Amino acid sequence: MPQSKDFSYLLSEEAKRRNASPLKTAFKYFGLPDLVFLGGGLPLSDYFPWNEVSANSPAAPFSQGIAAKPENADDGTITKITKTDGTIPLSKSLQYGYTEGQIPLMEFVTEHTRIVHNVPYDDWKCIATIGNTQAWDGILRAFCDKGDSILAEEYTFPSSMEAASAQGVNIVPIDMDDFGIIPQALDEKLSTWEGKRPKLLYTIPTGQNPTGSSLSFERRKEILKIAQKYDFLIIEDEPYYFLQMEPYTEDLETRKKIGVHSHQEFLDSLVKSFISIDTEGRVLRLDSASKVLAPGVRFGWIVGQEKLLERLIRAHEVSIQAPSGFSQAIIHGTLSQWGQEGYLDWLIGLRHEYTEKRDVAIDTVAKNFPSEVTSFIPPVAGMFFTVKLDASKHPKFATEFEKDPLKVENAIYEMALEKGCLMIPGSWFSIKATSEQKDTHIFFRGTYAAVPLDKLVIGLERFGAAVKDSFQL
Amino acid sequence: MPQSKDFSYLLSEEAKRRNASPLKTAFKYFGLPDLVFLGGGLPLSDYFPWNEVSANSPAAPFSQGIAAKPENADDGTITKITKTDGTIPLSKSLQYGYTEGQIPLMEFVTEHTRIVHNVPYDDWKCIATIGNTQAWDGILRAFCDKGDSILAEEYTFPSSMEAASAQGVNIVPIDMDDFGIIPQALDEKLSTWEGKRPKLLYTIPTGQNPTGSSLSFERRKEILKIAQKYDFLIIEDEPYYFLQMEPYTEDLETRKKIGVHSHQEFLDSLVKSFISIDTEGRVLRLDSASKVLAPGVRFGWIVGQEKLLERLIRAHEVSIQAPSGFSQAIIHGTLSQWGQEGYLDWLIGLRHEYTEKRDVAIDTVAKNFPSEVTSFIPPVAGMFFTVKLDASKHPKFATEFEKDPLKVENAIYEMALEKGCLMIPGSWFSIKATSEQKDTHIFFRGTYAAVPLDKLVIGLERFGAAVKDSFQL
Repeated sequence: MPQSKDFSYLLSEEAKRRNASPLKTAFKYFGLPDLVFLGGGLPLSDYFPWNEVSANSPAAPFSQGIAAKPENADDGTITKITKTDGTIPLSKSLQYGYTEGQIPLMEFVTEHTRIVHNVPYDDWKCIATIGNTQAWDGILRAFCDKGDSILAEEYTFPSSMEAASAQGVNIVPIDMDDFGIIPQALDEKLSTWEGKRPKLLYTIPTGQNPTGSSLSFERRKEILKIAQKYDFLIIEDEPYYFLQMEPYTEDLETRKKIGVHSHQEFLDSLVKSFISIDTEGRVLRLDSASKVLAPGVRFGWIVGQEKLLERLIRAHEVSIQAPSGFSQAIIHGTLSQWGQEGYLDWLIGLRHEYTEKRDVAIDTVAKNFPSEVTSFIPPVAGMFFTVKLDASKHPKFATEFEKDPLKVENAIYEMALEKGCLMIPGSWFSIKATSEQKDTHIFFRGTYAAVPLDKLVIGLERFGAAVKDSFQL
Repeated sequence: MPQSKDFSYLLSEEAKRRNASPLKTAFKYFGLPDLVFLGGGLPLSDYFPWNEVSANSPAAPFSQGIAAKPENADDGTITKITKTDGTIPLSKSLQYGYTEGQIPLMEFVTEHTRIVHNVPYDDWKCIATIGNTQAWDGILRAFCDKGDSILAEEYTFPSSMEAASAQGVNIVPIDMDDFGIIPQALDEKLSTWEGKRPKLLYTIPTGQNPTGSSLSFERRKEILKIAQKYDFLIIEDEPYYFLQMEPYTEDLETRKKIGVHSHQEFLDSLVKSFISIDTEGRVLRLDSASKVLAPGVRFGWIVGQEKLLERLIRAHEVSIQAPSGFSQAIIHGTLSQWGQEGYLDWLIGLRHEYTEKRDVAIDTVAKNFPSEVTSFIPPVAGMFFTVKLDASKHPKFATEFEKDPLKVENAIYEMALEKGCLMIPGSWFSIKATSEQKDTHIFFRGTYAAVPLDKLVIGLERFGAAVKDSFQL
């Protein structure tokens, strides 16, 4: 396999200025049997006030579903950690060190990455993060100086954009359609670029937030080629990658039959990631436990080429240091008992749950929203769906709303709130200037992730009624 | 009590640019009983793979010492958390949200801060961090633009300085003596300042790293006055505050007798902090669980005025988000059972342990280092002690070492390593240019924190022998 290319010329001034601590040269002596090491301010683990931590999880292969409650407290996968025992004992997990992540956990994550993405160059690795939000903030610092530009989907996650604009980074929106970034639009934007070229493309390729769109493998290949042509890095923010679902079908009989039946079928069903086709080390992949295990564990990892990740590790040493030791020890305790196969079972279980929720959401939208003005694409991944409405068909479009689609959007948002359902207006996610938005279509972002199915149905019935009332249909 | 002053003019451009997410306006509707909220991408807690987490800790008042092993597994303080039970149930701790910290934990921390520091203005608060390293990196971003200056002790924690210089911030060293920053030197530096004034003083006031020095209350008052005079903020980085010890005495009989005997005596024994005398909101205090509970929990908090902390919260929302939910839930589970009084018992227990370790270290240095060239001040706080040597008395000072004290330092470092003990050369912590260091005294930083007592003695005997050999004494 090839080695990655050197992209160090894309680093920010800040990243270039980072040095390793001089103390590191002393730490190479730490742990030598004949040496008394009085060099580091590490508290004795005798004084850590926890002697034992245990956690109880469902057991693979989750045949009753991932959300099934265990009948007995002793059922399930029990993780037990003491100061000296457990896959990552407390004397290690609660001590300083391991900025790159606790070794056994990173080995698990790396093997998982190999199974799923099979990165096609030699010197790739995974380093620990405390989640993709921080990882993205750190990547911005590592590559962008004030005044630099990045590319992003025209509708995207506001926190990511907020992080960029606070750093004084210019954000250039790329046109999307129902299936994500339009490669031709990206190429055109770059071919007519004036001034300093963008260093990064920030994208949420799978189950995009907010649109719910997913880039096809074909589009990913085209976008990677464009990245090579105009020499920028791709940052794939992929928290929803494993919330890929079965294809939507209205037919209930077909629904019962579809579903993946083996680990290989599952792996084959996943759209190929940017990193899986990146032979140069041009892609940094942000992976997170937030949507597949739990957000509050604050653990994720970046996959990418070693040379660029080294700069991030230097930054982590003097900022986040490392993810929580409790989080790392408990996660590894659970995952190591499940094993790689058991973890795939968990992800298949998630797929099943999300497919059901997506189906209920789409069925309810189809039934309750007026087809004259509504369109939607059933999402194939993620937590979000969008409902598109043609604002120009609103009876007051040309009068009260002065042909401004955003006024229609706001009126519907408020009427739905009154009826008791909240979805987020699409314009809240737009990074284009309002004047640039010429389309008369508006959309709302909903989620099927956060509420039980019965509430989901009630909510969407209410929202549909609000649309009907507003459009007088 | 007064309100804090407005220091927003000291904020960085980055901090001023930070906006709240527009989605926040929707989240005010979250949890309303009649509303179906389809606005946020929160996974259902049904899919969090941990049904129960429990932790076992020593029980207050720790009458056998904080490091005593429990005789039975059921002894001690048991924390049990399920998805719906516990002081911070898993459905909350492992979910998104609570950037400022989980409410019950922050209430505990705030009450603790009131008991210990009794901040003398109205609008102070505590916000959660993932430790002081990140807190300092975030404060640098919040106040300093590239090219701005900060003040720091001439010997200080390299990671903190590395964070500053990577951001392009100039670091101006302030002269210290055996008792920390010399207020007159600070005043003089500022009275002759040219160009844009410094915005921050970074200080480790108690058990300073690396010198082991602690600022007296008198000096703190003087330094605060100088901060008012020249209008900069004080960032007190205080991980070692609760590692304040009994006064050192050679007399073993006296040693047995001294020690605090009540919570009030303990609180009275602590040197008053900068924040406890700050009526303006000019001090930001960085507190950490790393040295008093365990480093790997990655939990700390900043105490300061609400208006400045609000800017940090906006930054946390788009970077760290929140400390680990496992960490917060387990810490609060333990602390809430100990109670404020039990937590003070824990800290008194730590004081006892560290006093004993400090005593052994100092006894051993006194006995084994050649008094002709050695001087030391027994530290009153922290994990570190320093041994000062007069390099000019080295027989080869003027010849082989060309009157360069750092060459003597290096020779001794290497000879001690050969003999099997490592302490860190003081010059490694210096932020002064080498040319500015005219003193012929060198020092080594040791720690009594990281090794058991028997190894501490062996190590220091070896180091003393290296000094004797090197100086031919």
